[in-house]
Amino acid sequence: MTAYFIGIDGGGTSCRAALAAGDGTVLGRGKSGAANILTDPEGGLRHIIEAAEKACEEAGLETTVFGSCHVVLGLAGANVEKTVATVRKRLPFGNCAVESDALIAVHGALGTQDGAAAILGTGSVFGAKKGHRVRTIGGWGFLVGDQGSGAVLGRRLMQEALLAHDGVRAASPVTGKLLDAFDKDPRKLVAFAHDAAPGDFARYAPIVFEFAHKGDPVAEKLVCEAAAQVDEAISVVLAMSEPRLCLLGGLAAPFEPWLRPEHRACVTTAKGDALDGAVSLAIERFSLKDRAHA
Amino acid sequence: MTAYFIGIDGGGTSCRAALAAGDGTVLGRGKSGAANILTDPEGGLRHIIEAAEKACEEAGLETTVFGSCHVVLGLAGANVEKTVATVRKRLPFGNCAVESDALIAVHGALGTQDGAAAILGTGSVFGAKKGHRVRTIGGWGFLVGDQGSGAVLGRRLMQEALLAHDGVRAASPVTGKLLDAFDKDPRKLVAFAHDAAPGDFARYAPIVFEFAHKGDPVAEKLVCEAAAQVDEAISVVLAMSEPRLCLLGGLAAPFEPWLRPEHRACVTTAKGDALDGAVSLAIERFSLKDRAHA
Repeated sequence: MTAYFIGIDGGGTSCRAALAAGDGTVLGRGKSGAANILTDPEGGLRHIIEAAEKACEEAGLETTVFGSCHVVLGLAGANVEKTVATVRKRLPFGNCAVESDALIAVHGALGTQDGAAAILGTGSVFGAKKGHRVRTIGGWGFLVGDQGSGAVLGRRLMQEALLAHDGVRAASPVTGKLLDAFDKDPRKLVAFAHDAAPGDFARYAPIVFEFAHKGDPVAEKLVCEAAAQVDEAISVVLAMSEPRLCLLGGLAAPFEPWLRPEHRACVTTAKGDALDGAVSLAIERFSLKDRAHA
Repeated sequence: MTAYFIGIDGGGTSCRAALAAGDGTVLGRGKSGAANILTDPEGGLRHIIEAAEKACEEAGLETTVFGSCHVVLGLAGANVEKTVATVRKRLPFGNCAVESDALIAVHGALGTQDGAAAILGTGSVFGAKKGHRVRTIGGWGFLVGDQGSGAVLGRRLMQEALLAHDGVRAASPVTGKLLDAFDKDPRKLVAFAHDAAPGDFARYAPIVFEFAHKGDPVAEKLVCEAAAQVDEAISVVLAMSEPRLCLLGGLAAPFEPWLRPEHRACVTTAKGDALDGAVSLAIERFSLKDRAHA
């Protein structure tokens, strides 16, 4: 019986699947809704299966092959063990490994090469790839981690705007711009923050970069602070592997010019995306296993 | 008909009321459960009325006097206008002013004198009193404010412990102690933070002071960072009034030795507590009004 490999990239906005043959040729792809198993395990599970079914259909296969498929899932929220165990038990696939969305992104970006990656979006996470092994650091979330992420940067802007409003620190065009967005009423800002998800805070990160670029002192301070934290983590992952660095995520481009010159010198284009990473990881991991059993 | 004055101090753990005559003599006191109108408006309202009823009973009065009572309420969560309006409409009192818990605390601490106060507990807020006027700054909450509060300090410790776990920053006894509390498993720490209220983070603030006192480098850095933020805000409120400073709240004593010498030199003992402040404010405000109408 032919072995098929499925890669799944499940994130906060959508879930994608690709079904491939053992040589890596993708035979079908599918896409569905959000798959954050931490915030919505039921919906996540449904969308994972739906994306895989669509990929299967596009490949001209019956979903009965699922039972003999080798699958790697990269999922947002996969660092919470209990949730992963619950979801894994209900997956219809033969062999199955649940990894973090960061791990498959690092694999996809570096392909067969060794190096490091920084994923800078709403959250932040850093990875080093050396041979078959990927180690990630960071990604602990908005409250106690994710230094240098869009969510933390947006929240820092709100903090500085409130300090400026109170006369504790100097105001600047960017703190004024933020307060204007809340009708100059700090209570509206506080009420917003009270109900805001990380993505809501992250929406304010781009204006910090925009104003920093124009020389706004508060925006410059915040970007330098965030870039220094990103640099700290990049140093750690580069030290684990080769001097090759992929910058990924929506804030990769705005951050790049603020990073240390020695880190910028290592920057290289990503070989592929997270879904590519999940597929190649499925083949790599489960083909090796099959060979080990042969 | 005799005018009675009621002061109410409603906080996150309990609600206290005192009923006084026009000369300030307290005739009765009452206590009930939590009254944070932001997180639980219904429960808050119930506890406010319950505390006032008990004070009324102790004073040997019927609750029918409520309709002619002059009341000042100092409430946690009073900076959110919509919530205040909803609660105020349903209060059974004659004249009624809703203020922040910080404002009545500043009034109580300074009594008839002018000066400043720093309230350092789970949250942080700063006030200046000049004549009848009190202005507060800070107190914007755990997410976008409350610099130098116990909640923020506890969260900063968690951030440093995770950075140490990842090898991004140096570990120290205090980061080890914190990780031990989560069975050395950063995922348990992250899961805790995900569901934690500000008070849950603040429970870790005392160990930061304890280790800073023993020379732990990470704990020292965090306390110095927090103390610098407290000093920044203290400078602002001292500049608004006289060089007299009351340090209030559960972290007042641990913070004091870390503050700037010129701020420590202004420190004075509080004249009274927040409930005293609410009562005297009720008399001051509504007696003046009555005189104005006479």
